[in-house]
Amino acid sequence: MKLYFSPLACSMATRISLYEAGATAELIEVEPSDAAYARVNPLGQVPALVRDDGSLLTENAAILQYVADRFPEANLAPRDAEGRTRLQQWLSFIGTELHKVVFGVLVDKEAPPEAKKYAVEKAQRRLDWLAAHVEGRDTLLDRFSVADAYLLTVLNWSVVTPIDLKKWPAIERYVGKMRARPSVAKAMGEEMTLYARRQA
Amino acid sequence: MKLYFSPLACSMATRISLYEAGATAELIEVEPSDAAYARVNPLGQVPALVRDDGSLLTENAAILQYVADRFPEANLAPRDAEGRTRLQQWLSFIGTELHKVVFGVLVDKEAPPEAKKYAVEKAQRRLDWLAAHVEGRDTLLDRFSVADAYLLTVLNWSVVTPIDLKKWPAIERYVGKMRARPSVAKAMGEEMTLYARRQA
Repeated sequence: MKLYFSPLACSMATRISLYEAGATAELIEVEPSDAAYARVNPLGQVPALVRDDGSLLTENAAILQYVADRFPEANLAPRDAEGRTRLQQWLSFIGTELHKVVFGVLVDKEAPPEAKKYAVEKAQRRLDWLAAHVEGRDTLLDRFSVADAYLLTVLNWSVVTPIDLKKWPAIERYVGKMRARPSVAKAMGEEMTLYARRQA
Repeated sequence: MKLYFSPLACSMATRISLYEAGATAELIEVEPSDAAYARVNPLGQVPALVRDDGSLLTENAAILQYVADRFPEANLAPRDAEGRTRLQQWLSFIGTELHKVVFGVLVDKEAPPEAKKYAVEKAQRRLDWLAAHVEGRDTLLDRFSVADAYLLTVLNWSVVTPIDLKKWPAIERYVGKMRARPSVAKAMGEEMTLYARRQA
């Protein structure tokens, strides 16, 4: 497998999941907006996963469930129908409501200020709802899943946005717990180094 | 099952899927922004599905896969692993890139003009990619699936946006074919009537 990623982008969720599974993959750093990368993924987005048969898989929700199913012994996704349904609900909420509606706009240097203001207005209700769920919980489901890897990755972006997670102590606590996981700490350390190198 | 919906909103994908399955559900029309509805779904979004055990399910990607799995004889979702992975890729692409990044902003009366302009700028690359896939195809996967129900629902919104699907003949043809399906025609007819009644 080859994972195309950009440091600290949402592709980090797949890196975390691979580390949780003790799995190896070729990790290829790209600049998503590069014309050369459009030949891999015409949408110019990461993550993109090239599987062993050469086929391309895109979209976090699909890639993360694929990785979970590929390494079942890591228990990164529930196998029962109801658990899988709940995982899909969380992956969709994180991907649509948090990533695309709120944080993705706020971290986009090309988004106009009015679009960012509109994104900030959407944050409160969504984060209130998330906070109510993670209150007293260390993971979204009964145990760590690929949805936690995705959620942590997106919430990390808040530091460069006007959204201060301190307003939601339950979320801040969740993030702190998540960052202490070895897989997350390793992935964040590596990608922060790559990100800093790119900024320099 | 109770399906909370708003006419022509993305909840129509679930109505189409239920009709495809010949399934019955209590369909409850709501105004998502109403305070009363927040007691059903604190996020104030449709669809929301209350299942027979009383539990609430939200998020299109999760609800649509749940409905497909609940009525397997309707073949609304692939059952093999690779087919399911591809379905999840499409559900995620439609939910994130088309619904939330592009069309959801354009149909929101409260979105500022600059946010709409930003959404329009994002459309071309995403619709180019979709058009390349649906060229010569009647469905996203090998046969009709819940992803088609979702895609058709979102593409319908283009009529009230600056995005003219005529620029992508493959997509226009796909939409035309899809609207000719009895389940889609029935759902659209009913929800257009409800929508017109609400506007009047």
